[in-house]
Amino acid sequence: MARSDIPYKIYLTEDEMPKTWYNLRADMKNKPAPLLNPGTHQPMTAEELQGVFCEELVKQELDNDTREYPVPQEILDFYKMYRPSPLVRAYCLEKKLNTPAKIYYKFEGNNTSGSHKLNSAIAQAYYAKKQGLKGVTTETGAGQWGTALSMACAYFELDCKVFMVKVSYEQKPFRREVMKVYGASVTPSPSMTTQIGQKILSEHPGTTGSLGCAISEAVEVAVGNPGYRYVLGSVLNQVLLHQSVIGMETKIAMDKYGIKPDIIIGCAGGGSNLGGLIAPFMGEKLRGEADYRFIAVEPASCPSLTRGVFAYDFCDTGMVCPLSKMYTLGSDFIPAPNHAGGLRYHGMSPILSQLYDDKMMEAVSVPQTRVFEAAELFARTEGILPAPESSHAIRVAIDEAMKCRETGEEKNILFGLTGTGYFDLVAYEKFHNGAMDDYVPTDEELASYRARLPQI
Amino acid sequence: MARSDIPYKIYLTEDEMPKTWYNLRADMKNKPAPLLNPGTHQPMTAEELQGVFCEELVKQELDNDTREYPVPQEILDFYKMYRPSPLVRAYCLEKKLNTPAKIYYKFEGNNTSGSHKLNSAIAQAYYAKKQGLKGVTTETGAGQWGTALSMACAYFELDCKVFMVKVSYEQKPFRREVMKVYGASVTPSPSMTTQIGQKILSEHPGTTGSLGCAISEAVEVAVGNPGYRYVLGSVLNQVLLHQSVIGMETKIAMDKYGIKPDIIIGCAGGGSNLGGLIAPFMGEKLRGEADYRFIAVEPASCPSLTRGVFAYDFCDTGMVCPLSKMYTLGSDFIPAPNHAGGLRYHGMSPILSQLYDDKMMEAVSVPQTRVFEAAELFARTEGILPAPESSHAIRVAIDEAMKCRETGEEKNILFGLTGTGYFDLVAYEKFHNGAMDDYVPTDEELASYRARLPQI
Repeated sequence: MARSDIPYKIYLTEDEMPKTWYNLRADMKNKPAPLLNPGTHQPMTAEELQGVFCEELVKQELDNDTREYPVPQEILDFYKMYRPSPLVRAYCLEKKLNTPAKIYYKFEGNNTSGSHKLNSAIAQAYYAKKQGLKGVTTETGAGQWGTALSMACAYFELDCKVFMVKVSYEQKPFRREVMKVYGASVTPSPSMTTQIGQKILSEHPGTTGSLGCAISEAVEVAVGNPGYRYVLGSVLNQVLLHQSVIGMETKIAMDKYGIKPDIIIGCAGGGSNLGGLIAPFMGEKLRGEADYRFIAVEPASCPSLTRGVFAYDFCDTGMVCPLSKMYTLGSDFIPAPNHAGGLRYHGMSPILSQLYDDKMMEAVSVPQTRVFEAAELFARTEGILPAPESSHAIRVAIDEAMKCRETGEEKNILFGLTGTGYFDLVAYEKFHNGAMDDYVPTDEELASYRARLPQI
Repeated sequence: MARSDIPYKIYLTEDEMPKTWYNLRADMKNKPAPLLNPGTHQPMTAEELQGVFCEELVKQELDNDTREYPVPQEILDFYKMYRPSPLVRAYCLEKKLNTPAKIYYKFEGNNTSGSHKLNSAIAQAYYAKKQGLKGVTTETGAGQWGTALSMACAYFELDCKVFMVKVSYEQKPFRREVMKVYGASVTPSPSMTTQIGQKILSEHPGTTGSLGCAISEAVEVAVGNPGYRYVLGSVLNQVLLHQSVIGMETKIAMDKYGIKPDIIIGCAGGGSNLGGLIAPFMGEKLRGEADYRFIAVEPASCPSLTRGVFAYDFCDTGMVCPLSKMYTLGSDFIPAPNHAGGLRYHGMSPILSQLYDDKMMEAVSVPQTRVFEAAELFARTEGILPAPESSHAIRVAIDEAMKCRETGEEKNILFGLTGTGYFDLVAYEKFHNGAMDDYVPTDEELASYRARLPQI
């Protein structure tokens, strides 16, 4: 198809929007390993999980077989408020790079939460409401997930208690304030409001918090308050299920214009965006219907896929959550203080971990100053100020496009632009002022975290 | 047309996007009064204006006759990066208000500048580039215009010097930082870098600055540096011409679905959004082809239309700019410090001023706490955190929809949602904390400003 036939932005009509979520596990030969009870090391039963999670979400979490889930009408209606997201042809970036490659990105940032996180937040809030719950608890790091969940809870009039990693709480007062506009209560973590928070604060009085610690607090509050459950914005199978809407919209849009991506690139923290973006494409690959190259991009300062191990580990610092088999750096790993943006979780989605272990996808890590260089180039050429997280994918997309300039190949490169950087300007400022470094954990550091993995 | 036939969001295809700007002046019986030379009080000639503005823009400024301007291809290409903007049916807000009214809004905030300002910024940067200039100078208040211009200049690789009202410069460090990502230089105004800045600082050492003062500084730098011109984001006829893209897209989308708005509502500071939104509809009204009710909404703390006078006045504090006939509060009027957000200019677009004087449109003013109440309700139901400026229009749209609930009328209400409030969270926080008041200038205050109007 001639260049001029593909518009800058492809928006699906409401009729074309997907009405189902796709469950990648149904097509995986090697299923992700089951969650284990941290006490008995036996697989978690639905009953055990229902103390923490909503019933319907537990079903989704454990279901390795059902290929397609119809999206409930209430969620479809909410999706229509901010979806479809555009699939953008990056004509200006291509021109700037002088590359024969054709670059596409699926832009998930055009909503007030600023990222794709809303896709799963609204689903989880819906099931909580349907179950008659009073509210939900969660943790948030950079704040995108907390904002998304606040919006979803406001829509369904649910109470929303967010534990925000203390360093973000202090550095990102505006994120905090957005959540308050949506009626959420926001507590810096670790806090004195939970037992685990008190314990962590007494052991590490000066700690600035971590995702793993905030998870522990949120779970404690959910389990201890009738009518509350815990919800999580990444890592879990259910989250990847909901996020498949990203990939399904992308695939419908590309099929409509006869475009087949050669390379599909996504940033990877817990895996929610990457897992959602690649889902239907990976499904084709698993079923042997098509081949694609998938690249997970992670920060060099938090390299769970590229330098972690595939093992059972705790999902949280307090070790109250089930054990999950995943690529992990160890549950008490925390990226160096100079690490900007999200993608700071110690582990990776069990689904993506299994696929990576099965050699179905690649992973690379990139240092953060190169990420911000790519972010700035992208902002100036494509007009969107990207989130630092998303800019990991931009970096590798640019690198691949530059390889095409060398080889003359007209590859179709697709990447996920998960969100906007409007709340990340402290990091951009650091980058401009030359105050950003590329610290990478040493092998010794990583080994010391690894030594504390549970023995299973 | 049945409710279910109108989607939540209407996006035009690239083919459907307007290829021309509409010049409302061509259909006005009473043309806006000419700009006057501040020294001679004679109409400014094109030659005189070309010392300050780009040549092509001067032509547009003075042209009361040409009805349609073809949009240059380079600008159309840029528009395709972030346009068309969606026309949204506010189903969720309607449901929340339990109103039979049908509410539509044209959402201009889905771009990194966060507002409609980019529509004119890219046009002005294009003509500067085409003229072979090195760069442009401008002022910015809340920062939306400065951000938009920075983005446009980065795209065309032009130098961009922004004078930012000092109080905003200090309160909105992130806005400043976005402009720097796009390569602009940002100077707090008043500054010691200009003669007028030095004069104002010596007379008012503690001043936190004003738009009128920043304009004077930007003009001085443009006139004093070869290869530079001054550009402005509102008020001017040329700006309303470019912003007609908002109204034209809206009208094409509404016509496509057979929707005729009964009431069209826009916030009004200098008039760039309102003038653009209403343009093609007002054209029909002026030509007697259709009737619409137009409502300009302004802050009670800066009420140029509702409490100002229609007279020649200076556009800037330093009185270096041409005189313009407009509704004005006096060129040294500054809203009380507690006024949040933009819409703080002392005057109103000459085009809109003339139309208002001709009784072609209405104007109302609203106190700011009621504006923020509307903003929060909107955020929670429609999922978009609105800019304080845009929330003035939301307030009146809600009020009109509530009247429909009383009367049972199924009116079509259209309003302009000019931008997002991601950089306005200090104001939201104030609102939450009860630290926001509704101060309104007294008649005596307004009279004292009015007494200093130039005698023409």
